Amino acid sequence: MGRATAPDPMTSAEALLRTAAAAGIDVCFANPGTTEMPLVAALDAVPDVRAVLGLFEGVCTGAADGYGRMTGRPALTLLHLGPGFANGIANLHNAQRARSPVVNLIGDQTSWHLEHDAPLTSDIESLARPVSGWLRTSSSAQAVPGDFAEAVAAATGPPGSVASLILPADHQQGAVDGPHAVAPATTRPRTSERSVASAAEALGGSVRGPTSGVTLLLGGSALSVRGQRAAARIRRARGARLLAETFPARWERGGDLPTIDRLPYFPQQVQELLATDSHVIVAGAREPIAFFGYEGVPSQLVEAERLLELASPGEDAEAALEELADRLGPDARANADEAPADGASTTGAPEGALDPAKVGAVLAAGLPENAIVMDEAATTGLPFYFAAAPRHTLLSLTGGAIGQGLPCATGAAIACPDRKVIAFQADGSGMYTLQSLWTQARESLDIVTLLCSNRAYRILQVELGRAGVWAPGPVARDLTELDRPELDWVALARGCGVPGERVETAEALARALTRALAEPGPHLIEMML
Amino acid sequence: MGRATAPDPMTSAEALLRTAAAAGIDVCFANPGTTEMPLVAALDAVPDVRAVLGLFEGVCTGAADGYGRMTGRPALTLLHLGPGFANGIANLHNAQRARSPVVNLIGDQTSWHLEHDAPLTSDIESLARPVSGWLRTSSSAQAVPGDFAEAVAAATGPPGSVASLILPADHQQGAVDGPHAVAPATTRPRTSERSVASAAEALGGSVRGPTSGVTLLLGGSALSVRGQRAAARIRRARGARLLAETFPARWERGGDLPTIDRLPYFPQQVQELLATDSHVIVAGAREPIAFFGYEGVPSQLVEAERLLELASPGEDAEAALEELADRLGPDARANADEAPADGASTTGAPEGALDPAKVGAVLAAGLPENAIVMDEAATTGLPFYFAAAPRHTLLSLTGGAIGQGLPCATGAAIACPDRKVIAFQADGSGMYTLQSLWTQARESLDIVTLLCSNRAYRILQVELGRAGVWAPGPVARDLTELDRPELDWVALARGCGVPGERVETAEALARALTRALAEPGPHLIEMML
Repeated sequence: MGRATAPDPMTSAEALLRTAAAAGIDVCFANPGTTEMPLVAALDAVPDVRAVLGLFEGVCTGAADGYGRMTGRPALTLLHLGPGFANGIANLHNAQRARSPVVNLIGDQTSWHLEHDAPLTSDIESLARPVSGWLRTSSSAQAVPGDFAEAVAAATGPPGSVASLILPADHQQGAVDGPHAVAPATTRPRTSERSVASAAEALGGSVRGPTSGVTLLLGGSALSVRGQRAAARIRRARGARLLAETFPARWERGGDLPTIDRLPYFPQQVQELLATDSHVIVAGAREPIAFFGYEGVPSQLVEAERLLELASPGEDAEAALEELADRLGPDARANADEAPADGASTTGAPEGALDPAKVGAVLAAGLPENAIVMDEAATTGLPFYFAAAPRHTLLSLTGGAIGQGLPCATGAAIACPDRKVIAFQADGSGMYTLQSLWTQARESLDIVTLLCSNRAYRILQVELGRAGVWAPGPVARDLTELDRPELDWVALARGCGVPGERVETAEALARALTRALAEPGPHLIEMML
Repeated sequence: MGRATAPDPMTSAEALLRTAAAAGIDVCFANPGTTEMPLVAALDAVPDVRAVLGLFEGVCTGAADGYGRMTGRPALTLLHLGPGFANGIANLHNAQRARSPVVNLIGDQTSWHLEHDAPLTSDIESLARPVSGWLRTSSSAQAVPGDFAEAVAAATGPPGSVASLILPADHQQGAVDGPHAVAPATTRPRTSERSVASAAEALGGSVRGPTSGVTLLLGGSALSVRGQRAAARIRRARGARLLAETFPARWERGGDLPTIDRLPYFPQQVQELLATDSHVIVAGAREPIAFFGYEGVPSQLVEAERLLELASPGEDAEAALEELADRLGPDARANADEAPADGASTTGAPEGALDPAKVGAVLAAGLPENAIVMDEAATTGLPFYFAAAPRHTLLSLTGGAIGQGLPCATGAAIACPDRKVIAFQADGSGMYTLQSLWTQARESLDIVTLLCSNRAYRILQVELGRAGVWAPGPVARDLTELDRPELDWVALARGCGVPGERVETAEALARALTRALAEPGPHLIEMML
């Protein structure tokens, strides 16, 4: 570390941004206010850090998450005091659950003004702590470059994390010597020899059958190309079942990659699916935990005695899977491409009124090679996972805080300007951060939003049933229905500068998707379900 | 207190809502999720509490603020765990600064599920503490009705406060004896005899002139009709200058009420205005504090030796002002209506391309009697304060957390269905919570949104100048401009089910305002500035 040499003193804000640029951080998703003006001014002095404006802080934090997932490098956010930061918390919660690298720069009142409790003053640390793996308020301008370098290192990990640096306005503008070096990223630690041996032992006599078997649950870095190819070798050698965690931060899928199902969402489904397994081996994933606690259903869905951890989410799951495969004998030693699964192309193009199955089939068939799909389609999204599709990267809602899809797609498109991005988006959650569309138009991003208009919080209707409210009263039903009035997503998109169209059939969707993908810039297709 | 008798056991959720109904709480602004299903189901059992759905939590919390300002009674919010609550923090910050009564009901994971850190689990207390005057997590179903009764009492005050009650899902559905009684509201304490005597002494020889004088700064309850009439008696008797605090939670204005200017926003303006005063007497307001700390400008804008507190924000400012007026002799003993100030009506209707002055004049002239004006018009809003207008209630942005206007107007309209509501709204801040328009359409609320489209964060452009960045570079300028692409507010409104039109001249604005006010339900007028 130590300070890099710099000829002239500069402001702490400029030194911070030069520290960022030297560490390879090139984007700042910003919604600044008065207390961030020194950092705003410094953005003009450090053109290597590109400022991208969001009209709501949840857009900025969700975009930073998407950027981090696609690049492995943190983006900056620039946010305005406690309330502005608070608007970004929901998507930081998702980012923290995704282990995405994000560095928040949060302006605060001038340090000597804090005690007077001016209207915008609040306890930013209390707000930031629940979503920050690293948190600090800079104590002086001189401390800022070093604090920031620590924040970047903490965010980069591995695993990635949200790091939040609170910067009183006066600490952004004092003279400092220059930027600070950022510690080089560390590598993921190897899993223990014992973990690999235990997993190999569990797989030793594994033959998939009706009463016993082994499931390999993949998450985090295990869902890379390398991790999945190693897992497929294990499947080929021992018949183990492969599953992906329910809401992966990033999952390489499709084309000649192994076909892997996803762990179901509802806990009873998970219990049923895994009931006959002798062992469940987790690699890069957490053990299966119920999303919510339901009476009579355990929180931990696999008993401790059946559970083996090959690699924790922070460990090198790819290497662990390869090591495990190598142990299982010659059958598992070499990669072999799998034939693409049968899918939409062989069953014919769907026709007629849209439903989730047809939407999934049309999307899978129409997906361009190497696309990025951000899935916040909720109840509409499931069939897409069963359709054969070309190679793509899938991002999902990691923390359950809705309103992630449109911002995350925005950040992914900034990160990968040469790839097409599909925002596969439910309507209820889409309304949370629809301001993202404006940033997509402003930055001319190649994003097609497939908006699933079912005019309901459908998942809540399912949960009302599960809660035993089988015949919900008119008030309960009304709180889950979004049809009074109907949202007009084509109008909302146009309001944000994004062209859109509405489709009611599978054929119309296929045509609209082809058209939208052929034109540069963002588009929205409202799918009436 | 003690428990009210109830014949049969009921769920804690139902008991909570019956406690609310008995305390006169009749609205719940809701955006629930899975962990709030027992409360959702109970809303059907307790029809006295009306559920109003918002498509984003910031809509719910801002609406509760507006409802509380207009009724003095708390509304409930119903919010989904930490991330859902976090989406409502910014407007709770404003509500807490407004001293509005609000009771948040925040669902949490089933208590025995918390330790497993499921994806939506977070530290809700840490998030809620900065914006809650009262905060508790219910420890059991049996504790819920009593906890809730305490929350209502804490929220009601006076002064009002945000109270946050965290309810694990299982604690919402246990059997309890019945509802709990809420302690009756207390009255505001009287100010001290000494405070009145000191203020009277300061006013004793007051004659307004170029070098000395006394200013009476009114805020909180002093801006009621009664408070202002008493203040006007003091002005008549002693020539004191009357000023309202910069961002009043609620201010009765117009018609035959005393004409009172507002304390300016920028600290140097405040210093200049008050420079020659021998004393500044605050009543119901805090002492003048700079909104932000600027190099070379003190935080406290009036020196301690010139400052007198007649009544703190928590004390009975109306009674204190009347007592003070009574002391000042016969001239100040009686109320007298003031002649309406000269305004738009005498200077002729404005014509031609819109600017802030014309907007203010048209609004003042076209305002229906007894309207409610929610002012989040930012830099466009100022001229309205100088125009003569019929009697109205003005609500303003108390905490500086933008995105308050549309939700607060929504809540005010729910609170006062017989009054017309004007949402006087800047475009940058309007984008934060535009989902409010959908709730306005759903509930057929008589709200006319006057949307000030200047396609900029104009206040930040002013602040860039103040920060010494007189010629901001292209990046800094770009972060304050919203014209690429231009927002189309008529389309955004239509997308949410609200009819709208765009106007470019003062004459067109006057016609559109008349039309919109004549029709029931919400309307939006996009004013191109």
